[in-house]
Amino acid sequence: MDKNLARLFNKSIKSVGLPPGTLPDFNLQNEYDHIHLSIVEYTESQLIEKDNISLEECLQHLITPEKTWIQVNGVSDPRTVAALGKHFQLHPLVLEDIVTKGQRSKLDEYENQVFIVVRVLQYDEKHHCLKDEQVSIVFGPNYLICFFEGLDDIFKPIKERLKQENNRIRKLGTDYLAYTLIDLIIDYYFLVLEKVDVQLDVLEEELLNSPKKNTVERIQKAKKEMIILRKSVWPVRDVINRFLRLEPPLVSATTQIYLHDVYDHTVQTIDIIEGFRDVVSGMMDIYLSNINIRTNEIMKFLTIVSTIFVPLTFVSSLYGMNFEFMPELHYPWAYPAVLFLMLGIALVMLSYFYRKKWL
Amino acid sequence: MDKNLARLFNKSIKSVGLPPGTLPDFNLQNEYDHIHLSIVEYTESQLIEKDNISLEECLQHLITPEKTWIQVNGVSDPRTVAALGKHFQLHPLVLEDIVTKGQRSKLDEYENQVFIVVRVLQYDEKHHCLKDEQVSIVFGPNYLICFFEGLDDIFKPIKERLKQENNRIRKLGTDYLAYTLIDLIIDYYFLVLEKVDVQLDVLEEELLNSPKKNTVERIQKAKKEMIILRKSVWPVRDVINRFLRLEPPLVSATTQIYLHDVYDHTVQTIDIIEGFRDVVSGMMDIYLSNINIRTNEIMKFLTIVSTIFVPLTFVSSLYGMNFEFMPELHYPWAYPAVLFLMLGIALVMLSYFYRKKWL
Amino acid sequence: MDKNLARLFNKSIKSVGLPPGTLPDFNLQNEYDHIHLSIVEYTESQLIEKDNISLEECLQHLITPEKTWIQVNGVSDPRTVAALGKHFQLHPLVLEDIVTKGQRSKLDEYENQVFIVVRVLQYDEKHHCLKDEQVSIVFGPNYLICFFEGLDDIFKPIKERLKQENNRIRKLGTDYLAYTLIDLIIDYYFLVLEKVDVQLDVLEEELLNSPKKNTVERIQKAKKEMIILRKSVWPVRDVINRFLRLEPPLVSATTQIYLHDVYDHTVQTIDIIEGFRDVVSGMMDIYLSNINIRTNEIMKFLTIVSTIFVPLTFVSSLYGMNFEFMPELHYPWAYPAVLFLMLGIALVMLSYFYRKKWL
Amino acid sequence: MDKNLARLFNKSIKSVGLPPGTLPDFNLQNEYDHIHLSIVEYTESQLIEKDNISLEECLQHLITPEKTWIQVNGVSDPRTVAALGKHFQLHPLVLEDIVTKGQRSKLDEYENQVFIVVRVLQYDEKHHCLKDEQVSIVFGPNYLICFFEGLDDIFKPIKERLKQENNRIRKLGTDYLAYTLIDLIIDYYFLVLEKVDVQLDVLEEELLNSPKKNTVERIQKAKKEMIILRKSVWPVRDVINRFLRLEPPLVSATTQIYLHDVYDHTVQTIDIIEGFRDVVSGMMDIYLSNINIRTNEIMKFLTIVSTIFVPLTFVSSLYGMNFEFMPELHYPWAYPAVLFLMLGIALVMLSYFYRKKWL
Amino acid sequence: MDKNLARLFNKSIKSVGLPPGTLPDFNLQNEYDHIHLSIVEYTESQLIEKDNISLEECLQHLITPEKTWIQVNGVSDPRTVAALGKHFQLHPLVLEDIVTKGQRSKLDEYENQVFIVVRVLQYDEKHHCLKDEQVSIVFGPNYLICFFEGLDDIFKPIKERLKQENNRIRKLGTDYLAYTLIDLIIDYYFLVLEKVDVQLDVLEEELLNSPKKNTVERIQKAKKEMIILRKSVWPVRDVINRFLRLEPPLVSATTQIYLHDVYDHTVQTIDIIEGFRDVVSGMMDIYLSNINIRTNEIMKFLTIVSTIFVPLTFVSSLYGMNFEFMPELHYPWAYPAVLFLMLGIALVMLSYFYRKKWL
Repeated sequence: MDKNLARLFNKSIKSVGLPPGTLPDFNLQNEYDHIHLSIVEYTESQLIEKDNISLEECLQHLITPEKTWIQVNGVSDPRTVAALGKHFQLHPLVLEDIVTKGQRSKLDEYENQVFIVVRVLQYDEKHHCLKDEQVSIVFGPNYLICFFEGLDDIFKPIKERLKQENNRIRKLGTDYLAYTLIDLIIDYYFLVLEKVDVQLDVLEEELLNSPKKNTVERIQKAKKEMIILRKSVWPVRDVINRFLRLEPPLVSATTQIYLHDVYDHTVQTIDIIEGFRDVVSGMMDIYLSNINIRTNEIMKFLTIVSTIFVPLTFVSSLYGMNFEFMPELHYPWAYPAVLFLMLGIALVMLSYFYRKKWL
Repeated sequence: MDKNLARLFNKSIKSVGLPPGTLPDFNLQNEYDHIHLSIVEYTESQLIEKDNISLEECLQHLITPEKTWIQVNGVSDPRTVAALGKHFQLHPLVLEDIVTKGQRSKLDEYENQVFIVVRVLQYDEKHHCLKDEQVSIVFGPNYLICFFEGLDDIFKPIKERLKQENNRIRKLGTDYLAYTLIDLIIDYYFLVLEKVDVQLDVLEEELLNSPKKNTVERIQKAKKEMIILRKSVWPVRDVINRFLRLEPPLVSATTQIYLHDVYDHTVQTIDIIEGFRDVVSGMMDIYLSNINIRTNEIMKFLTIVSTIFVPLTFVSSLYGMNFEFMPELHYPWAYPAVLFLMLGIALVMLSYFYRKKWL
Repeated sequence: MDKNLARLFNKSIKSVGLPPGTLPDFNLQNEYDHIHLSIVEYTESQLIEKDNISLEECLQHLITPEKTWIQVNGVSDPRTVAALGKHFQLHPLVLEDIVTKGQRSKLDEYENQVFIVVRVLQYDEKHHCLKDEQVSIVFGPNYLICFFEGLDDIFKPIKERLKQENNRIRKLGTDYLAYTLIDLIIDYYFLVLEKVDVQLDVLEEELLNSPKKNTVERIQKAKKEMIILRKSVWPVRDVINRFLRLEPPLVSATTQIYLHDVYDHTVQTIDIIEGFRDVVSGMMDIYLSNINIRTNEIMKFLTIVSTIFVPLTFVSSLYGMNFEFMPELHYPWAYPAVLFLMLGIALVMLSYFYRKKWL
Repeated sequence: MDKNLARLFNKSIKSVGLPPGTLPDFNLQNEYDHIHLSIVEYTESQLIEKDNISLEECLQHLITPEKTWIQVNGVSDPRTVAALGKHFQLHPLVLEDIVTKGQRSKLDEYENQVFIVVRVLQYDEKHHCLKDEQVSIVFGPNYLICFFEGLDDIFKPIKERLKQENNRIRKLGTDYLAYTLIDLIIDYYFLVLEKVDVQLDVLEEELLNSPKKNTVERIQKAKKEMIILRKSVWPVRDVINRFLRLEPPLVSATTQIYLHDVYDHTVQTIDIIEGFRDVVSGMMDIYLSNINIRTNEIMKFLTIVSTIFVPLTFVSSLYGMNFEFMPELHYPWAYPAVLFLMLGIALVMLSYFYRKKWL
Repeated sequence: MDKNLARLFNKSIKSVGLPPGTLPDFNLQNEYDHIHLSIVEYTESQLIEKDNISLEECLQHLITPEKTWIQVNGVSDPRTVAALGKHFQLHPLVLEDIVTKGQRSKLDEYENQVFIVVRVLQYDEKHHCLKDEQVSIVFGPNYLICFFEGLDDIFKPIKERLKQENNRIRKLGTDYLAYTLIDLIIDYYFLVLEKVDVQLDVLEEELLNSPKKNTVERIQKAKKEMIILRKSVWPVRDVINRFLRLEPPLVSATTQIYLHDVYDHTVQTIDIIEGFRDVVSGMMDIYLSNINIRTNEIMKFLTIVSTIFVPLTFVSSLYGMNFEFMPELHYPWAYPAVLFLMLGIALVMLSYFYRKKWL
């Protein structure tokens, strides 16, 4: 099983029997380098953005009344998560979910907080495989904290929009900000599907024209990618559906309309994936039939050559016998006669093959 | 993957991270040529129809109190869509859905407007493939705007009926007009299914009698067409179901009865498609078994010819040996005896094959 | 695709864009011959039956207060349907459904009328295929009109029972009459299933013992028959379920008990069909494995014969070489020695095949 | 199709069009022998049991106030059923269901009666097939009548328990007695599943080690047994579920707890059957791959032998040519040289096969 | 069928017809050795733990007001179960379920008790198979009794946590203790899935690179493991779902939050298993295609060698004929000419194979 399937099983098992809500004890020294905090404080008229700040600096900013979006990239440092968790009174289970990779997408509702886990799919051009990372979003009345497993600045387009004054995000609450983040993640799904579409295209082309040795392997790989896609996208539909049904003040009526839209996109994604699945599951059949067709052709060739020459060889070996009394050996016309006989046999055979459509 | 599957993925990805409701910035110069506006204003007694008018002209007509049906063919000009959207106070998401190709069929209900997206299937005789285009319908108390991705006048039959006085459409509201449009679209589905039915007919005939090299390819193509059909038709059922359950004043009781009828047609369409799917999925099995049968026949022929002549050749090569002391070489009756022996062997073989039913 | 599958698609497409409720404009002259009206007027004590009457005669009888059952065989004459429709105030959509062949089974409830479409399956012994015809039933307080696509008197047994005084049908309302008609139709389903059962029996017997060339074709035909059966029977369950839930005065409590019984029969029919489907879908696998087994046997025979004689032929051709210095050619015991060698090789080969269980 | 599948279709078709509730007109003389009535009358303190009594005797006992369990084995005598039906005021449809073999399991609720049909599965050791018989149970306030299609005393264990004083059955109502009967029937299912489990075990063992000619047939038979099992067990779940939800006085709260337990057993039975189905459906694949593997081995052997000896034979036939001027024929070392060449060719071939892992 | 499938059917059939709630009459002497009782009594501040105590000792401890957790390993001694059952007033059906192996996971609610059965999966390293054992948990206001089929101390981690003061388990009720037990069991599922993941990885690697004789057997074994996994995990979801919906005082609001978390884990487990199932079901296809590819290669080799040498052998046997009048035999250049002709034939053949991509 290659790396992809291993992704099927990316829940980092907590030590069996640890109490729920326990944060894993990472080697801090090693992992700390990878954490990256940034903060955006905004009101309708103002916006402050600070990138790559320390945890201490971050916590100072949290006392302000403005709407605050804290972006945490690289969640492997439980100290940061714990400090933020303490400040915002996050439930221990939320903290555990944030630092545990491989969570299923889900939405949990707490008293005045909403906790959302969504999986982000990207296509890793380098390793030619799907990158399936986890985003955890917690939002309350005037703050939103977003934890991202990876280090890429995947939400950059939203930061850009946020900088524009009069933008809808600046006017509406943090629920709308949460929506824009999820909407962007769904957009990433479409990018991945486009890539997969092209790949399947190439694979099918190859399958029908010049199947190679590793084609089976690649079909199986495509099948596993479909499994990962499904596993990632199906639960997102439920998440958005539950998001939709949250009531004010957690989610405003305006945001709900937009959530309906992103819900439709998710359903469309699922439709496309199911279509892909059908296509991929048909490929194995095509491959198998192709092998059988080629075996059939090889057999046909062998049969034609063998069944023409085997009788001819018999005839010639007949007259290679050393019996003393074989009168025909002595007639001058015998040799040409036998040659004509052989030609006749060959022609009869060929015409038989022609009628059978084997030629 | 051929063009057909590419259709599976025809959502034109908006630039990732663009705010929802953003209209794409097409090259207006180029696309404007393809837009075609027409307008029908009607009351029970009167009807004015204007074809191929400019946007400005169109907007002037909109002030009138009569029921108005605006038909927009070719939706690639965001200026027109935006102007109409402003006049009718359409939600930005509606505008985005109208100009974004590849939407899933859906029905959104706004305060006093209903927004419906349905996919129109037609069979493109030229390119021998399914044409899957998008119709967006917005209707309110006395207007209906219909945006169609393509340029054909697909709703011509309804315009004709509208011109007849005393016609039911003239008497009833725009909800009934919306119903007639959707009913016509479902009728187009049946036309496509009829075409597909004939195609499958030809394909199966060929499959059973004279399978060709590209048969696998064509079965796969048929499979993909089924995927597109399903993907297009299934959501329409939900759309009509939701349409049905809208309440007055959006939908009148009279229209609801008719919607029940078109709902039944959609279910029937789905039944037919599922039947087609079963038939297509059986074709690959038939094809595979056909190849195996033919391989079997070729093998049989090879086996019969080889197993008859190989022993005979052995016998004749036996008497072609050059040993000095082979007494039988010197008997006059030896040669005919060997010939009879050979005949005997061949007959035994043939009777064996006959008993085995290989002949 | 043979006739059977064509049945999958037997909705006679109305001209695209015709208003709903439009009756097709048949060539009356030609089709009129095929219509056949009969009428039964009955109270608990009296019964009048008139067969093969004209439309005019029929309409005269309709003014009477007795319960009236009008049977219309051959529905291709829109004039009759329209006249009856006018008299009983049928909805235009009902009329359209009656004359349109290939409707899906359904039940529509109108103010004081119930409209039911059910498909009748019969086995056509002549053409060895399923006959799938449409029955439309409209009933109100004291009348029931039954339109049947075909010309056979399929409801004869009910007419016989109706003639007996004290029969339950005479005592109860037209809803009970409608139930008896549907019950009879379900009985026809069981007759068809019995036929199909026998056919599958024969087909499987043949498949396991002596598969023929057209076996694939016949399995595919059986598969299609299953599709038709499913497509016909599944919706009937919903129809009866909705019939059950109608309230008095449309359906009496007594009739409801009987409808529960016929509902159970429908579910049983569906069970049987699903069982058949499983059996049929297994047949293709059996067929494929049979071909492979036979190829395997042929190969085994070829291999045995070839691998015995090919080495022997080599040995004999070895001593057919014309080298001057081949000392063994001159020993008197060489020829018998070579013959023994050959016998040895053959025996070794045979024992090898025997151990491999190829013999 | 063997006997087993025929069981799929064991509804004895009543003559088409007979009124519902009609009892079939059996040849009484012949069938009467097979009927067997027994009766158990019991209160908490007393119990009277009478076996093999006549109908007349039975009816006399029915007037008593004690709880009465009438067991009717062999239901083919409509006279008995009708007499009992009259006494207990059974609905005509109930009577029809009792005498009609092949009913689907179901529960019908009447005013103060519950009518249950359940199918009993037993494994017929003699004919090596499933025996699928029908039990109909009617119970009211102080009586329970149980009709069993077969003649075995399948409820003997319950009669034994009933004879013990202080037994729960004696204390509780007839609903609890009905529960014990059904519980016993589910226990019979487990016995059958155990048998099937062993059979599948043997079949799979044989499949992997020494597949025989009739293996396909037996897999298909196992598949059909799964169909029968499913068809019998699935509806029982619904029956028990509905039994559970009946309200006092029909079913007491105490009995409901026990019904929950038997419901769990049914669900477990279904789980096991679904597991069996998966296993059986995998067997065909294994069988197919086994045939292919064996064909592959045969081909390998043929290829090795042929490709070694065919070139050697060519070489030796080369020097069997009779050209006058073949100088190498006259060198003394030519013959040994050719022999070495042949040995070389054979060794090269063998090493090639070895590297290809064909040896 | 190997041991694994036998597990599918591990309900130890109680003697048919035994009254429900009957405890099996084990050979006490023999089984008693295997029972192992331990007890933990705890309040927020205190904790007493006693291991390996006798039943009598255990019962003495039960009178105390502290929260008590009784752990019973090895449930085969009905005397212990009965004594505990009497003390805690357990329903006879609960007792039967505890001692009956092979129960389906379920939750039954009694007046002030909750009874839960869950299956524990562990991977048996020794026998390379899944170990599927049963845990029965009964809890009431201040006690929890846990019966485990096996003898391992699988709940040791929880005992460790319980010993820490201030631990959440000590503060919260027995419902929370029940939650921690189930949470641990789900953690064991993940461990098993990890093992299965590695196994499938190895199997697939082998399948693509060097399929062996027993690969089919191992794929079938993997398939059965998937069946067992599904059968064990699916019902657990329902159990937790019902646990969630219990109301105080049986389950506190705090525990409910934690149960939501474990519910999510179960759903994730199911997702992973479904993914595995898809992967495994694809393996058989890959295996089949691999066999076919290898047969194809073998055929290709045979065909190439045969079709080159068969014509050459014919030519040489032609000139081995003994006709008197074969003029070409006497030309000095004839022999080299024939050799060149042969070379030409071989080259033509090879180039044909090269163009066909068979080389």
